[in-house]
Amino acid sequence: MIENISSKDNKTLKLIRQLKKKNGRTDNRKFIAEGIKMVREALVYVPQDLCCVVASNELFAKEPGLIKSCDAACGRVYLVPEFVFDELSDTDTPQGVLAVINWKDKQFNAGEGERRIVILDGISEPGNMGTIIRTAEAIGYDGIYLMKGCTDIYAPKTVRSTMGSIFRMNFKGGCTASDIDELKELGFTVIATTPSGDIALEEYKSPEKCAIIIGNEAHGVSHEVMEKSDAGVKITMDGMAESLNAAVAAGIVMHWINLK
Amino acid sequence: MIENISSKDNKTLKLIRQLKKKNGRTDNRKFIAEGIKMVREALVYVPQDLCCVVASNELFAKEPGLIKSCDAACGRVYLVPEFVFDELSDTDTPQGVLAVINWKDKQFNAGEGERRIVILDGISEPGNMGTIIRTAEAIGYDGIYLMKGCTDIYAPKTVRSTMGSIFRMNFKGGCTASDIDELKELGFTVIATTPSGDIALEEYKSPEKCAIIIGNEAHGVSHEVMEKSDAGVKITMDGMAESLNAAVAAGIVMHWINLK
Repeated sequence: MIENISSKDNKTLKLIRQLKKKNGRTDNRKFIAEGIKMVREALVYVPQDLCCVVASNELFAKEPGLIKSCDAACGRVYLVPEFVFDELSDTDTPQGVLAVINWKDKQFNAGEGERRIVILDGISEPGNMGTIIRTAEAIGYDGIYLMKGCTDIYAPKTVRSTMGSIFRMNFKGGCTASDIDELKELGFTVIATTPSGDIALEEYKSPEKCAIIIGNEAHGVSHEVMEKSDAGVKITMDGMAESLNAAVAAGIVMHWINLK
Repeated sequence: MIENISSKDNKTLKLIRQLKKKNGRTDNRKFIAEGIKMVREALVYVPQDLCCVVASNELFAKEPGLIKSCDAACGRVYLVPEFVFDELSDTDTPQGVLAVINWKDKQFNAGEGERRIVILDGISEPGNMGTIIRTAEAIGYDGIYLMKGCTDIYAPKTVRSTMGSIFRMNFKGGCTASDIDELKELGFTVIATTPSGDIALEEYKSPEKCAIIIGNEAHGVSHEVMEKSDAGVKITMDGMAESLNAAVAAGIVMHWINLK
């Protein structure tokens, strides 16, 4: 059913406004995937989790096929005037379509079969979080452990920055030090990436099973998590720049560890 | 001289509004570095290029030492009410201070002594541009060649994303295919990073002198530039993600090439 919405007080539009905030996402167990690419990815990878789709009339005129596919998948598409969509949008240049997606309730747990895990400890910037998720999938990591204190993976900007990896990656949320202990019991070597590490990444021989810790953008890996690590590795630097962007550093380390 | 500005029509404030646009930067040959860290970096690395500094009264109360250092360096600090600063700011969470910096007029040209160059071809997103500049400096590259069609390195968001590398990196702007020919004459091997490359990065032995081409976020390296390259390398991928973020891909390739 493709339905026109005329009132701003419509309950779907109210829901979307709620989902822009973390509390709203937690209460409703849903999140927003905005933009043409993200909606296409949702149709392919999580059609069963598609709750509803909101599009501008203009987008419907331009991409009727996309909207009809959304209707076929979830049966609930709402059309709004462009100015209403722009108010809902989280972006500076709205494309006129967004999907509301139900949360995956299933938590990932590494087992015997996994060999590459990323542990995120206090990543605070949504763009970095999304980019790290995207990189982890592209390079072939098995899952991401999110320590308490990480920014929400379901924030609109994070979701967009994953370019669709949010639908495919395995996550374990709300992790504590005991989750790292469990990884070690499974045979994982846990390495922290830190400028104060005593091993140069470029000289590090990767173990068969490895979990890489990436810390907060400003403060690095927390003391509590660092204590659980088996080794600290640092990326060799040469210039006067104090550090790399967290997503770039994560990418360099994930790539190196995976392939050596 | 630390001076209070009360009128929004003040000519320094008008200049700053102009500098938020590319035309305004080109006409005035100046750019903005916003935020406490960026102003501190400017004081250390380009005090001679500091044109003036604008701060909110609130920031002056909190960081009088910083403002006095700015006054000592350039002799022109303007204080404005917070709401006026917030209108000037390019960020969602203004810190209350920005510096106006004179452009470097000197163009960089690689010579016999250089061995690592990055060639950017159509990088369009300011955050990616700034992050690549930051990475190039941190890893120890000698300079960046900017092909025509790249986003402006002096855009406010780009400057912030460099975290200060903008003041220290060497740039050659407005490059064309003939600049790549010159690098080859100097003994550089020119490699393009592309998902369609026929050499896996992880099997590539870096030459002594190497220039790496990074292409546009959506369309990759342009045909014209690709034709000038000696080889195409690709990062080995494993997941369903179609590609890496451009700044992450650039970081992985720059790091690998530099150290192998």
